Amino acid sequence: MAFAFPARLGILGGGQLARMLAEAASTLGVEVVVMEREPDSPAGRIAAREITGPWDDTDGLRALADESLAITLENEFVDVASLRWLEAHGARVFPTAATLARCQDKHDQKVAAASAGIAVTHFRAVAGADDIIEAAREWGWPLVLKARHNSYDGYGNVTVRGSDAIAPAFEALGFPARGLYVEAWVPFVRELAVIVARGHDGAAVTYPVAETVQEGHICRIVRAPAEVAPAVARLATQTASQVVEAFDGVGVFGVELFQTEGGGILFNEIAPRPHNSGHYTIEACVTSQFEQAIRITLGLPLGSAAMVTPVAVMVNVLGRADGSATSEGLDAALAIPGAHVHLYGKLASRTGRKMGHVTALGQTLAEAEARALAAADALRLVALE
Amino acid sequence: MAFAFPARLGILGGGQLARMLAEAASTLGVEVVVMEREPDSPAGRIAAREITGPWDDTDGLRALADESLAITLENEFVDVASLRWLEAHGARVFPTAATLARCQDKHDQKVAAASAGIAVTHFRAVAGADDIIEAAREWGWPLVLKARHNSYDGYGNVTVRGSDAIAPAFEALGFPARGLYVEAWVPFVRELAVIVARGHDGAAVTYPVAETVQEGHICRIVRAPAEVAPAVARLATQTASQVVEAFDGVGVFGVELFQTEGGGILFNEIAPRPHNSGHYTIEACVTSQFEQAIRITLGLPLGSAAMVTPVAVMVNVLGRADGSATSEGLDAALAIPGAHVHLYGKLASRTGRKMGHVTALGQTLAEAEARALAAADALRLVALE
Repeated sequence: MAFAFPARLGILGGGQLARMLAEAASTLGVEVVVMEREPDSPAGRIAAREITGPWDDTDGLRALADESLAITLENEFVDVASLRWLEAHGARVFPTAATLARCQDKHDQKVAAASAGIAVTHFRAVAGADDIIEAAREWGWPLVLKARHNSYDGYGNVTVRGSDAIAPAFEALGFPARGLYVEAWVPFVRELAVIVARGHDGAAVTYPVAETVQEGHICRIVRAPAEVAPAVARLATQTASQVVEAFDGVGVFGVELFQTEGGGILFNEIAPRPHNSGHYTIEACVTSQFEQAIRITLGLPLGSAAMVTPVAVMVNVLGRADGSATSEGLDAALAIPGAHVHLYGKLASRTGRKMGHVTALGQTLAEAEARALAAADALRLVALE
Repeated sequence: MAFAFPARLGILGGGQLARMLAEAASTLGVEVVVMEREPDSPAGRIAAREITGPWDDTDGLRALADESLAITLENEFVDVASLRWLEAHGARVFPTAATLARCQDKHDQKVAAASAGIAVTHFRAVAGADDIIEAAREWGWPLVLKARHNSYDGYGNVTVRGSDAIAPAFEALGFPARGLYVEAWVPFVRELAVIVARGHDGAAVTYPVAETVQEGHICRIVRAPAEVAPAVARLATQTASQVVEAFDGVGVFGVELFQTEGGGILFNEIAPRPHNSGHYTIEACVTSQFEQAIRITLGLPLGSAAMVTPVAVMVNVLGRADGSATSEGLDAALAIPGAHVHLYGKLASRTGRKMGHVTALGQTLAEAEARALAAADALRLVALE
């Protein structure tokens, strides 16, 4: 199916993932229409059209559908009802509303994965403190209390080490207004992530297994490929593919996994969109996760997910202070050989906010990581004094 | 020097080079303001702001200067007076008006290069047919008659094989309204091109020497690195660097060269901007020519120009018919492994118009070229029937 130019692709959400989707779309001659709640989003500023309004605004959704060949999303917090509305009005939306519905609630994700035979840690929904006490009796402390919805970058996870910690955790997470579930602590040796790109015909390509290193529940470093035994990589890849298939996913998915002692793999969570653990694919793989998402959304063939370099390391650039964002340190970062700096153009820095990332390619993870870390550390991005 | 976000860079011109500059700027969190004569240019559609009007419109230039941290250009047809106006009004413009003034007239380019001691073929300005007859007497037929200004993609060059051909060539080139010069035919064995990125401090990085293959005076294929003896590559690199230094260039420059029998190098022409012969650098080099231009314009450090792959081949995608552009053949092109397809989003296809390009990386030029050609040939981009 050919389309005419100008050609526009719709994106629900306007953050950095949408911006990197827009960059990938541009190389194929395709512009984007972004729908975001507030104006001046990272992607909105390079979009051909920025629709501002809540994601359930039908006027906005209608404009998005009218102007777009097809629509994708950059986060899983969009209302499933909005995707259903778009589909009912003839829009081509990938991932589909049905897949988003299965991904949106992290508790229900686990239920669906477990019923598809995929290994997960113990978990249960939380109606009150008793459920946590009961969980601790069965699985022991610590437990991890998680929000079912709208959690990202650690905003939504609390490790609970005893019954005294339940009430403060409830308060921190906004329970009972916000639904929670509780998980057994996983004594993992390493966290892994796999990007899976799955097309309309069910054929999928999987990217190399990456290791993710979190600090304070926020992804800090991604190493690709992960230094794991071939059998572990195979099991991780297979698990990630099975999860995406179980959710009948069409699009790009980030699947987070735990590697346990003994080489077991447990499914942790799935994101129905390009994922922070796959940013390294921009420079390190034949086809980036973002181009892959554009291809799938437009019904074009999948590209190769092979790496073009032995290893790649990505380091997130997190805000170090609250204030107006500047390019402070960009010159120092760009002076580091082979540091691929990505800034998202966010206007406000906040401590811990994802402001950009750096990828370094190399022959060994150690030297690539040293360069990526040096460049990321050089980026201060705080207000000019 | 740090800048605040949102940060905008200005570009004079809105074609595909400006679009690829905008894509590179976006990865650094920087948006672009494009000034182009007509609306809806390839870059204008992904720009934060598109100023439409003639390049000598001072209202437009003032807006461009006001909104941009610094300004660059995507073609050499912009009035030097406009750059001078911008500089006089405090704008940071790279390449500078002085450099553009030396590049804009292809005859004067050659004069300047020759006086800097750089080897060029015989050439002379043309005031009438007599100059051509005289040139033929000295250098023999054929001769190449070239427009001094505004020539690109073969619109501006005519090979003249005898005195009967002078009058038709004058007519084809619009002489005397358009100034011309004449060159001795160069019995070159191959055309080469080198991208030179030169910073504010005069330090430069040079990209690998590439071979360019023209068909009907339009670049069709670029092979990098060129299969030439090391001494030839060194001489080509040195010549390209000398030319850019002779023009006191700050920015990214495409330098076209002839390799003659015996391994000599003659300077052909210079473009004061990213160049078609450097599109392969997007995937094949650590820092693309476009990111390099953004870095220099913003006063940031130069990046490495090293290749990340043994070889790369770029094939231009030229319009095959006049009509509305579509994505016809894009699916077939993307199904070819490792074909990096770039479409410029041009709304109208015209025979011979540059509509996009394909780059393939590989271990050997032959296999990379086969893949890039197959993908480029698959892209029909003609109107839907």
